[in-house]
Amino acid sequence: MAKTRSDSPEEMVQKLLAGDRRAAARTITLMENQSEKNNQVMKLVYPHAGKSMVIGLTGSGGSGKSSLINHLIRRYRDQGKRVGVVAVDPSSPFSGGALLGDRIRFQAHSMDDGVYIRSMGSRGYLGGLARSTSDVVRIMEAMGNDVVIVETLGAGQDEVDIIHVAQTCVLVLTPNMGDDIQAMKAGIMEIADIIVLNKADLDGAILCLRSLEATIQFAISQREDGWVSPLISTVASAAKTEDLQGINELMKTIRDHQEYLHESRAIDEVQAKRIEQELGLVFKDEVQKFIFKGLKGTGKKRQYIKAIFEGRTDPYSVVEEVLSTFLKVGAKVNETSGSKKHI
Amino acid sequence: MAKTRSDSPEEMVQKLLAGDRRAAARTITLMENQSEKNNQVMKLVYPHAGKSMVIGLTGSGGSGKSSLINHLIRRYRDQGKRVGVVAVDPSSPFSGGALLGDRIRFQAHSMDDGVYIRSMGSRGYLGGLARSTSDVVRIMEAMGNDVVIVETLGAGQDEVDIIHVAQTCVLVLTPNMGDDIQAMKAGIMEIADIIVLNKADLDGAILCLRSLEATIQFAISQREDGWVSPLISTVASAAKTEDLQGINELMKTIRDHQEYLHESRAIDEVQAKRIEQELGLVFKDEVQKFIFKGLKGTGKKRQYIKAIFEGRTDPYSVVEEVLSTFLKVGAKVNETSGSKKHI
Repeated sequence: MAKTRSDSPEEMVQKLLAGDRRAAARTITLMENQSEKNNQVMKLVYPHAGKSMVIGLTGSGGSGKSSLINHLIRRYRDQGKRVGVVAVDPSSPFSGGALLGDRIRFQAHSMDDGVYIRSMGSRGYLGGLARSTSDVVRIMEAMGNDVVIVETLGAGQDEVDIIHVAQTCVLVLTPNMGDDIQAMKAGIMEIADIIVLNKADLDGAILCLRSLEATIQFAISQREDGWVSPLISTVASAAKTEDLQGINELMKTIRDHQEYLHESRAIDEVQAKRIEQELGLVFKDEVQKFIFKGLKGTGKKRQYIKAIFEGRTDPYSVVEEVLSTFLKVGAKVNETSGSKKHI
Repeated sequence: MAKTRSDSPEEMVQKLLAGDRRAAARTITLMENQSEKNNQVMKLVYPHAGKSMVIGLTGSGGSGKSSLINHLIRRYRDQGKRVGVVAVDPSSPFSGGALLGDRIRFQAHSMDDGVYIRSMGSRGYLGGLARSTSDVVRIMEAMGNDVVIVETLGAGQDEVDIIHVAQTCVLVLTPNMGDDIQAMKAGIMEIADIIVLNKADLDGAILCLRSLEATIQFAISQREDGWVSPLISTVASAAKTEDLQGINELMKTIRDHQEYLHESRAIDEVQAKRIEQELGLVFKDEVQKFIFKGLKGTGKKRQYIKAIFEGRTDPYSVVEEVLSTFLKVGAKVNETSGSKKHI
């Protein structure tokens, strides 16, 4: 095979926009390596993104998110839609985790040119997994995917940040998750637009549904947008197709929520929130890179750690000192100024 | 009840160092509210911290971490040691989650002056949960607790950051967690100093032990420090005390790991890594606060979001523009300069 020549960011993005899957893969790898070209590429990608339906599926490992996604992919493909999947869950079959049987099931899609799947490792993102995922979803949008599905574990702040990328957030629970449901309630429940009780053929499903209904009532009362998050029972894994349950209802409910967003114009609010989130993530990342670059190679960091270790100072004093070196103290963005070019 | 008067940071820390639990509670609440006094308090606390044994217990909701911690507390108390517990898991009985029976069990400790328990909500920390937890552990150390136990869910980058606070990290697994074990493997397995298979009386425990042994072999081979993480089977919840299993062994293994750290001087490395981690967390937090303060009230943020929304610019260009306002471009900490006071 010929050695891949190094394209310019412009060439890479051009190919990606034309649907070149290898160019997309190279672009995403570039993101993961936190190359200097990162922002340059994203500036080119960004104007072409934002036209897809973005669905988030979140739930703990083993809840069957991937099986549900598998069904969604198939149905959207039947409608002729192009589908992108970003898997942030390391136990997901899409990421190479989970059981061998699952992985084989998903390889079917890897032969389909209308499906583009990418998994995000949980390490090696200087700017954090949330920023990288956000960028990758934008790339999937720019590639022309009609639907982009993001699969996450749904625990921790990083994950909550990631879910904000989605327009429609589906929380996947199972009857046997016990205490995990309580963990889920903290933070995730209120932002779930659709709640799925998967593996609804398991013992205890009915009891679990009852208890969920009460929780959902409370979570809904916390929402400001007036959307009443439906609770759907599904069976996404079954030996026989006729034993599957709730997949059509899930498809319909996602469509309902999307229609609600567009008819009520709530979609604008959702998009604005996503942009706000993106701004925050890119911000943090760039500031860290800036300071990291300034400290690099000075041996200063080691000196600071040694001084704290020996009790001569503390992290709070060190940070104050370093920040005064890098930041223009008292700086404030002027109300009247701003980017000459854009605003 | 008389209204609490507002102590100065010096007074508050003085009381906290003397073991005043209410002063400790007020100090931690101050942290949670991200008050301006935050760093001032932490600078006073820091010199008195760092002398405790810090143990991390991490594992998914329902794995029985809290029951194990309950046994550890009792045994350390029998040795006359003071114990602090920081619960970051929202499903933990320490946090008010989990089953009613559990909560009642833990209330026994709340009557004991030698045990100080604090739970961290998963929201409202501008600087992130990891930084707040790190600060609270320092406060628990400064209070004079001989042992500080940190309980976390162990998923997501935030959690991995939190675990780095601990000198001895205990990963708690159960035979029935299925796919979650694979999720755990990504990132957590390599940093676990002790692996506990709790609920070892459940079906499938022996099969699970076998499979874990292989995984641990691989994880150990990734470690640089030469410590071979032991695998312990426990039963931390049982109707009869004689049905409990492995608690003594867990106590002994924690002691072994601590002895190993001190005898091999690896403890210095662990402490240095913790300081490096703290520096990073305080850094991120302070930078965010700084920029947030600069943007606040200018209406600029809304303008930026609108401009991106309307396609006139993108997050990457906006961040570049804003950063050029705040950052001294080309700044580099000078090798020879530094804090006059400390270094």
